[in-house]
Amino acid sequence: MTLTQEKLYTEITPGGYGIAIKRGETLFSEQSDYQKVEIFESNSTLGRVLTLDDLMMLTEGDEWHYHEMIAHIPMMQHPNPETVLVIGGGDGGTVREVLKHKTVKKVVLCEIDGMVIDACKKYLPTVACELDNPKCEILVEDAIEYMKDKENMFDIVLIDSTDPMGPGEGLFTDEFYTNVKRSLKKGGIMVAQSESPFAQTESVRKMYVQLKKVFPICAPYTSNIPTYPGGYWAWAFCSEEVEPLSYYAEDREQDIVKTCKIYNREYHNARFALPNYLKNLIHG
Amino acid sequence: MTLTQEKLYTEITPGGYGIAIKRGETLFSEQSDYQKVEIFESNSTLGRVLTLDDLMMLTEGDEWHYHEMIAHIPMMQHPNPETVLVIGGGDGGTVREVLKHKTVKKVVLCEIDGMVIDACKKYLPTVACELDNPKCEILVEDAIEYMKDKENMFDIVLIDSTDPMGPGEGLFTDEFYTNVKRSLKKGGIMVAQSESPFAQTESVRKMYVQLKKVFPICAPYTSNIPTYPGGYWAWAFCSEEVEPLSYYAEDREQDIVKTCKIYNREYHNARFALPNYLKNLIHG
Repeated sequence: MTLTQEKLYTEITPGGYGIAIKRGETLFSEQSDYQKVEIFESNSTLGRVLTLDDLMMLTEGDEWHYHEMIAHIPMMQHPNPETVLVIGGGDGGTVREVLKHKTVKKVVLCEIDGMVIDACKKYLPTVACELDNPKCEILVEDAIEYMKDKENMFDIVLIDSTDPMGPGEGLFTDEFYTNVKRSLKKGGIMVAQSESPFAQTESVRKMYVQLKKVFPICAPYTSNIPTYPGGYWAWAFCSEEVEPLSYYAEDREQDIVKTCKIYNREYHNARFALPNYLKNLIHG
Repeated sequence: MTLTQEKLYTEITPGGYGIAIKRGETLFSEQSDYQKVEIFESNSTLGRVLTLDDLMMLTEGDEWHYHEMIAHIPMMQHPNPETVLVIGGGDGGTVREVLKHKTVKKVVLCEIDGMVIDACKKYLPTVACELDNPKCEILVEDAIEYMKDKENMFDIVLIDSTDPMGPGEGLFTDEFYTNVKRSLKKGGIMVAQSESPFAQTESVRKMYVQLKKVFPICAPYTSNIPTYPGGYWAWAFCSEEVEPLSYYAEDREQDIVKTCKIYNREYHNARFALPNYLKNLIHG
């Protein structure tokens, strides 16, 4: 009798450990001008999976962990976020969360790889569902170029990028952060995904060195992401004048919380309490 | 040319996903009267790994995530914890953290499987290092029997068990929790590991139904565990009269925090802020 071993998708970090997911049918697999874009069914409760260059970007079953945290933590700390920029994030999950805020008049998505957008619209409709919203303007272009001449345009900028290698690399420099800072309106906030504090310590350390050169206020916050390395992720909350937790949009609280699987006010406040090892990594 | 595929230890939950770790040499592998006990080297930054019945118990590289959280959250909410009981926890990690508190006169470890204790003393010395401390009394016996006649004995009881199947099953019943409650002194606190809120929802739900039958105060708290399902874990804080966060042992704060990789007061306070989906699971 021959046993057919079930196929596993595994992503092993340089540390020698990582995630394994039962793999099903491949729905989309193509090389774009920038990266390999792949979407497959998992034989798991996580549903469909998006990978870029064979690295986990999201699963349908846990993407809300990431998207609720990158969007609502800064959005709820701004009294009236009208104009929002999302850099990267071609899957549309961050745009979906941003558009839950009634104050928003326009969200610009600046994604370098049109293939990611098209594939997600077709195969990940619960994630990409707001990309056709008339308030969403999609720019398929390099955010590094786009940001060079922007000034006083955005209330919130969200850097929803891949890791600091490949197409995402130029998004992790002090030059780029300086351009983002200039693009913010007064009272504006930038949030950037900032890797796994447990599994990618050197990337995290380097990134905060760059960020702190540019932003006088720069505070990490963290949350659980089941399918990312270490099950734990950090985002950098950066601003010229807005201290973390100095403002809370109570008028939008009920509307946002009722649509979220994770986000609520207590959870929001708790995000900025850090483990000792992460404090030492960033401030030590 | 033949490529030798590197061996991976994978633990796939019933949900169809889980952890993968590069596997090295097996140091210990035996069947005890209760379970298969195994310790192996990983070819990873996680160091050595302990499994029971092929399920992940701990790695040297991340065990502090679990042990700091199960021990210090209740210990720091008691003004003078002198007598502590650890149920399960034969690896010694919880005992090690408990004994950091100068108030402790005795910690009793009640572990059913002596083989776990012996193997961990030999192969996981950084975890088991306090099991020979004169303040630690080791009982190799079934906690279900042991707890039947204990009354007014412990300030803190920590249930550091395996999952609710196999040898650990009887530790998840209202009868057992009733015996634990009777064993607590006035102002006493029980904390029980309570599974993965993301990956083991049905186990979590059932457990809190049992706990709430017995304890008038029963509050989950959560933290990141990189190598447990979903990277996210819950513990139940239970008491007859102590509300969570109603007391903090400031006199011990400095001593404890300086020895910890995660634990600090802000992080402690933030543990009780829960995501919506966990609140709904337990209270809904």
